[in-house]
Formats: sequence, C-alpha cells, structure tokens
Amino acid sequence: MRVHGQSMRTIRPLADGAVEIIDQTRLPWSLEPVRLARVDDAVRAIADMQVRGAPLIGVTAAYGLALALREDPTDAALDAAAASLLATRPTAVNLAWALARVCGATQGRRIPDRAEAARREADAIADEDVAACRRIGEAGAALIARAAAAKGGGPVEVLTHCNAGWLACVDWGTATAPIYVAREMGIDVHVWVDETRPRNQGAALTAFELGQEGIKHTVIVDNAGGHLMQRGRVDLCLVGADRVTRTGDAANKIGTYLKALAAHDNGVPFYVCAPVSTIDWRLTDGMAQIPIEERDPAEVTHLGGQRIAAPGSPAANVGFDVTPTRLITGFVTERGVCRPDSLARLFPEEAAA
Amino acid sequence: MRVHGQSMRTIRPLADGAVEIIDQTRLPWSLEPVRLARVDDAVRAIADMQVRGAPLIGVTAAYGLALALREDPTDAALDAAAASLLATRPTAVNLAWALARVCGATQGRRIPDRAEAARREADAIADEDVAACRRIGEAGAALIARAAAAKGGGPVEVLTHCNAGWLACVDWGTATAPIYVAREMGIDVHVWVDETRPRNQGAALTAFELGQEGIKHTVIVDNAGGHLMQRGRVDLCLVGADRVTRTGDAANKIGTYLKALAAHDNGVPFYVCAPVSTIDWRLTDGMAQIPIEERDPAEVTHLGGQRIAAPGSPAANVGFDVTPTRLITGFVTERGVCRPDSLARLFPEEAAA
Repeated sequence: MRVHGQSMRTIRPLADGAVEIIDQTRLPWSLEPVRLARVDDAVRAIADMQVRGAPLIGVTAAYGLALALREDPTDAALDAAAASLLATRPTAVNLAWALARVCGATQGRRIPDRAEAARREADAIADEDVAACRRIGEAGAALIARAAAAKGGGPVEVLTHCNAGWLACVDWGTATAPIYVAREMGIDVHVWVDETRPRNQGAALTAFELGQEGIKHTVIVDNAGGHLMQRGRVDLCLVGADRVTRTGDAANKIGTYLKALAAHDNGVPFYVCAPVSTIDWRLTDGMAQIPIEERDPAEVTHLGGQRIAAPGSPAANVGFDVTPTRLITGFVTERGVCRPDSLARLFPEEAAA
Repeated sequence: MRVHGQSMRTIRPLADGAVEIIDQTRLPWSLEPVRLARVDDAVRAIADMQVRGAPLIGVTAAYGLALALREDPTDAALDAAAASLLATRPTAVNLAWALARVCGATQGRRIPDRAEAARREADAIADEDVAACRRIGEAGAALIARAAAAKGGGPVEVLTHCNAGWLACVDWGTATAPIYVAREMGIDVHVWVDETRPRNQGAALTAFELGQEGIKHTVIVDNAGGHLMQRGRVDLCLVGADRVTRTGDAANKIGTYLKALAAHDNGVPFYVCAPVSTIDWRLTDGMAQIPIEERDPAEVTHLGGQRIAAPGSPAANVGFDVTPTRLITGFVTERGVCRPDSLARLFPEEAAA
C-alpha cells in the first residue's frame, strides 16, 4: 500500500537481523518506524498495540520468536519466548498459529541453524499473508462488482468496523483488500468508516489508509450504521475477524455484532474477511469458547490524556464480541467466498489436522 | 434531583421574570447557571444544546415564548418567536407541542394579559413534566421490581443510552426515573451507561447524575451493549424518546436502534420511557415521517477541540434513529406501561384530538 505516495508494508525484516514496524499508536498523526531487535521489543510492540490486527499480531510474533533464537537458540529460550509472546493478547488466534508454525520450523534443526530457520518461516508467514490478503481482495471484489451491477449506478456503499486494513496485516488488509481490488477494476466505491471506540482504529487508521489510497470514505460514529442500513445507504458490510470457529462464529472488535444485527434486519449482506490463519478449528461455539480480552477502563474514560467521562464514574472495556454464524452471509477467504457453515469444506486439510 | 447534595431542577423561573437554566455543555466539569432574559436567549440555549432532551426542550421553548411576550405581546411577535423557537431542533416533537400549548393559552386574552398567561402556562408545563416523570418512574420501577424478583439476587442490570435523565427533563427524567424510584423502594440497581457518541451525553450527563444520586453505574462504549446482552448481563433496557408515532415507532438518539436489535436478539425487555408530550399522534410511520436532524460533522471528527479522525477525512453526523415498534417491548408513560401498539388506547382523548 501507499503512504505519502510510497509503497510500504507494516513490517519488514532488516538486513542486520532486526525487524522494523510502524508505531500504529502514533498514526494518523505521524509515521514512526520502530526497530525490534529483541524478543522483548516484539512482546512490547504487541502488548502496547504498536502493532495490532490479528494477521499482523501473528507475523510480529513469528519474527519475535526468530529474534529470541538469535540470542539463545535453546529449547528453553524458545519455550520462554513463545510463552511471553502468547501472553500478550488473548483473542486473536493468529498469534498461537504463527508461533506454532515457527516452532515447527525449528524442530529437528541443529541448534545453530534454528534462528535462521525461524527467520525464514517468519518471512514465509509474512509473504503468505500478503498473498492471502490479495486473494481475499480478489474474491471480495467480485462481491462488490456484483453489488455495483445490481445497483446500476452510484458508488457501492461499503460499511466497515475497526481496522481490518493493510495496517492490520502486512499489506492489502482483509476487509479493505476487496475495496482496493475493486478500485483497480474501476468500480466506484464509498466506505462508511465506523470510528470504533474506544481506541478509534476506524477514525484513526482505516480513514488514514483509505485517504492515502484515495478511496472515498466518510467517518461515522459507531451508533450510526444501523440508521444508514435502515435507509438503504449500505450495500455491503465487510469486516475482519480475530478468531473464527469451525462453525463460523466470528470474534471481532467490540460492536461488530451490533452491525451484523442491523445488516440482518435490513437484508444487507454481511461478510467476514479472514485468512485461514484466523480460523481456530478446535472451536465449535464462539460465545462459549473464544477468550475475550478485557482492557484498561481508562481507554473508555479518557481520550488523548483528557478525561471524557464524569469524574468518579467507573467504566468497563471489553475488546471484542462474537458474531454468531447465523448473522454472517459468508466468509471471504484466500480460497474464495463460502457460506459460514462451509469453512471446513473450503479448507478440508486444515479442518482435519 | 440532587447535585452536590442540593435539590434542584434543570430550569426555574426567577422572580424578575427571567428564567434560569444549567449550561449542560459545561457538565460534568462545572455547574453553571445561565440566565435567559429574552426569547433569543432561549433560542440560543436550545440551538447550542445548553439545554437538550425532548421534555426540557419543550419547557424551555414554552418559557421562551413567555419571554417574547414580555417584550412585545402582539400576534406578530408571538408568531415570530414561535417560528424561531421551532426552527432550533427538528426531531423532538415536545418543542412544537409546548409552543402550541402556550399559544393556545394566550388565545382570547387581552394583549396586556398575554405575557402573564404564557408564563403561567410554561410553569404548568414544567410542573406537569415533573409529575409525569414521577409517574413514569413509578410505572417503570414496577418493571425493575419484577426483574429483581425474577432474578432472585444481585442488582438488576439496566442499560440506558444517551441521557434521558432529569437533565433531559425538569426533574426525575424519563428513562432514569424508574431507577430513582426503584432505589426509593430499596431495590438494588446497577446501570450500564452507553457513552453515546458523538456528544457523549451518557458518559458526561447520565454518569454525572447517577453519580450525584449515588446510583451504581458503569460507563461503556456504544459498541459494548450487544456483547453484554449476549452474556446475560443486562436485565432491562430503558431509553427515552424524542418523537413517538401513534403506531409506536420511536425516534431517539442515534444508536438506540442497535440496542433494540440486540435486546430483541437476546430476549432482553426493551422499554421506551416517554410522556404523552413526546407522542406525535399525526404520524403512523416513524421511518418515513419523523424528521432526523443532521448535525455538524466536527462533532464526530473533533473532541474537546482536538481532531480525533484522520486529517482530511470527512464525517457524517446523524443525530437520531428510529426504532420500529416491533422491537419495543412496551412504553412507560405517565399512565402506566403499555404495549407499543396500544398508545392510543392509553391516551384516547389525545389520540382523537
């Protein structure tokens, strides 16, 4: 994707073995690269949400494990590093998935070769994420093209929640990739961007990246999407996910469930865009089985260091909710679009593993 | 209600003929009385949202008309004042209702008696609002008592959106009155307070008034209510309204519809608390017929003077949405609780007028 006209990725390996990320807590105000030289840097980057978004959390964790092995390639160091990376964020399953892949890649290697093997696996995960997002974009763009044809004029109106953009991945994004590919196809698209309280990833990150790419968009409060759908002003909802069950329940940023309800009530197609790395094949009941992160109440009561809630009033801050499969029109994956109950048919070898 | 331990109302007539309000744009940070001496002061107070909330808008407009007649009691002045007050806010029907009452009270009066007649009518509207809210509180408290009995232990968990509290009325509030009366009855209540972007009336006003009254509460982002209802952590939703059709569609602060959907999806009772002055008996289709205010996009992109959305990204700011009658469990009115399709049976003389 482009920032100030320059093509870039959210994370890139450096020649000296370190890794560079963008500090996303500083966006959209400044674009600050941060160097991750040690596993603790990667742990902190994920925990402090300098990187966020399920796919990017996974890729950063993979590089983090490689950084750990550079310093100490023993089994004990590998286990300790994996445990500290895994403890950073509970909901996105891509984290555990990426750590398992890197651990697997070091298995059976001689101790001196482990760091290099881990690094190569992290590179592969990053490149595969780019390719998967691109394919998600192509599959989702077909849905946008169909909406454009059905509409017969005017921009296709897409609503998205939070940031499931290239900033949440390595490039392209999950929910935004179809929009970028649709633009390549010459389709007129306008995006309603939920601001996504409390951390405002929609207003800060999604609006930033759509603006940089020249995609028409309008920021709205999280309260507004239902009204817009009632009035026929949304043709399609595209959201990302942090963890999906094999039965098609999807955990995503808090508030996603409310938009799925509104889409269902108004006959607006509601698609979850996610690569296979976001599917947790062990799970069959999202409400009961997906761990939901609770975060600092100060993210609700304060904004930019200023208190915005009444003095003395407590707050609660739940990071994610679960949209049940019955409210989801389909999943957009790197193998195409499927019904929410058909993920296992699309990925039979993964589902059986 | 009490503020810093002192009993007070949101609006009160002064001995010299002026009227005093609280500047609600300064709450919860400071409690600043504002003196309204002329009709233009009342127009500005409503337009700038120093007073807000459908019942209080109506009462302020009624006093505004009385202030106009103090200066010029002619028909021309009355018409001009009514027109400028009516133009301030489009959605709350209490505004037109209160103006019609005051105009009616001046009909057939000698010119020199008009200002006094208008003032007495405004006083009556204010006192009737207090009485109506108290009765709404008693009717709604019975619902809370029933929820407490059904639950058998622990606080009754009420979710509310925006501020339909005493700050939106003269005293008691509409959606909060049942909570205050339930507390008098010794019922343990905890309130989930939607912060209510973009103007944060929940975090700023509802949390403030519940705090002043010592009611347990927790501020949440607007995205969170669906998740809480999925997890069985809400027993009852109580919201206010800005305009209700005779068929029971309810316009209220943007985002109310999303909470009604979540309540419906999870079997949580969803009640709209409103006095008869909020019912527009001419209307039968809320979606088609209730005018919806669109406000300054800067309320979305900026907070406390600071930009929070990505630079250059446009925003939209719709003030209200319409919750269709099918999603509403019942209305809580000054004549008790009724099914959403039975408002005309509860108020036959008003419905026929």
